Amino acid sequence: MPLVRFDMLKGRSPETIQQILQITHEVMVAAFDVPARDRYQIVHQHEPYEMVVEDTGLGIPRTDKVVVISLVSRVRTVHQLKQFYANLAERLSAAGLVDKNDLMINVSFNNDQGWSFGQGKAQFLDGSL
Amino acid sequence: MPLVRFDMLKGRSPETIQQILQITHEVMVAAFDVPARDRYQIVHQHEPYEMVVEDTGLGIPRTDKVVVISLVSRVRTVHQLKQFYANLAERLSAAGLVDKNDLMINVSFNNDQGWSFGQGKAQFLDGSL
Amino acid sequence: MPLVRFDMLKGRSPETIQQILQITHEVMVAAFDVPARDRYQIVHQHEPYEMVVEDTGLGIPRTDKVVVISLVSRVRTVHQLKQFYANLAERLSAAGLVDKNDLMINVSFNNDQGWSFGQGKAQFLDGSL
Repeated sequence: MPLVRFDMLKGRSPETIQQILQITHEVMVAAFDVPARDRYQIVHQHEPYEMVVEDTGLGIPRTDKVVVISLVSRVRTVHQLKQFYANLAERLSAAGLVDKNDLMINVSFNNDQGWSFGQGKAQFLDGSL
Repeated sequence: MPLVRFDMLKGRSPETIQQILQITHEVMVAAFDVPARDRYQIVHQHEPYEMVVEDTGLGIPRTDKVVVISLVSRVRTVHQLKQFYANLAERLSAAGLVDKNDLMINVSFNNDQGWSFGQGKAQFLDGSL
Repeated sequence: MPLVRFDMLKGRSPETIQQILQITHEVMVAAFDVPARDRYQIVHQHEPYEMVVEDTGLGIPRTDKVVVISLVSRVRTVHQLKQFYANLAERLSAAGLVDKNDLMINVSFNNDQGWSFGQGKAQFLDGSL
């Protein structure tokens, strides 16, 4: 946890995608203060006509390199989320992987009882975590 | 925002999919009273064995044209949601794109802090929106 | 409802996937006490580099057969969720379909107004369900 989905157009190499995932994970671990192996990432690649990403009138120019990152997470503070957004945009753009204008993020909260990490157990409830 | 995912079987043309997305966007803008460019849509196409869509015993006949639309949104009123469901079914069926029996919709709410539309900012919190 | 998404690597046969879906549905119906036809399942298959599933330090070994199941549901009790997790892991592993260590589940709650099962109606609100 969190579960992190990445939606992007086809065209990046597996290596580039791996780099995006790695940086996202590092930024998430730092912002949310979670264990290093708290990593659950899923990538969906799309045809151009399968993604429409505009800007709510904010004047943010998008390219075909746009990435939409969707998290499901336990509750995080506003401060943690702002850190995550800002640092992720900074790191991904600095690495030449995703421009700051091409990064959209959304986060939904769920509850501790909503997670089973394996073995049929609810690890947030049974003292394992 | 909202983020809108469309799950459907493979087989429609890109043009048909574009029409479904366009109508869904128009209906959403009207029902939720959001900016015209508040458009974030992602399509997932599937093999027949990758989707099972029954009817909870409601007696709704499905075909291989079924579309499941999943939204993540700020809180919307019951009235807004009902408008969205009814108008979307009406418009998509009138256009011959999706039969009313083949349209399933689910909506989840998240919080204002759960959105970064670009540039690493939380635009609902910083006065941009 | 619930809407159930399955993310897994490519490689299983359609028949095997069908068995995973069938067992998941049976366990869900029993744990949540929902109608037999309350079945809405979507499968996403991925390349190896599109999924990273670690273990939050819990010491759960994963293989390339890992399955991530994501539900959106009305509110369920802790007891119902624990039953679902435990019984699903038991049934899928007993059938040789998914090892207990390869099953990760996450559940998010939404509201009754967040569902339209077809025909543009909100069936939890209009007395149909």
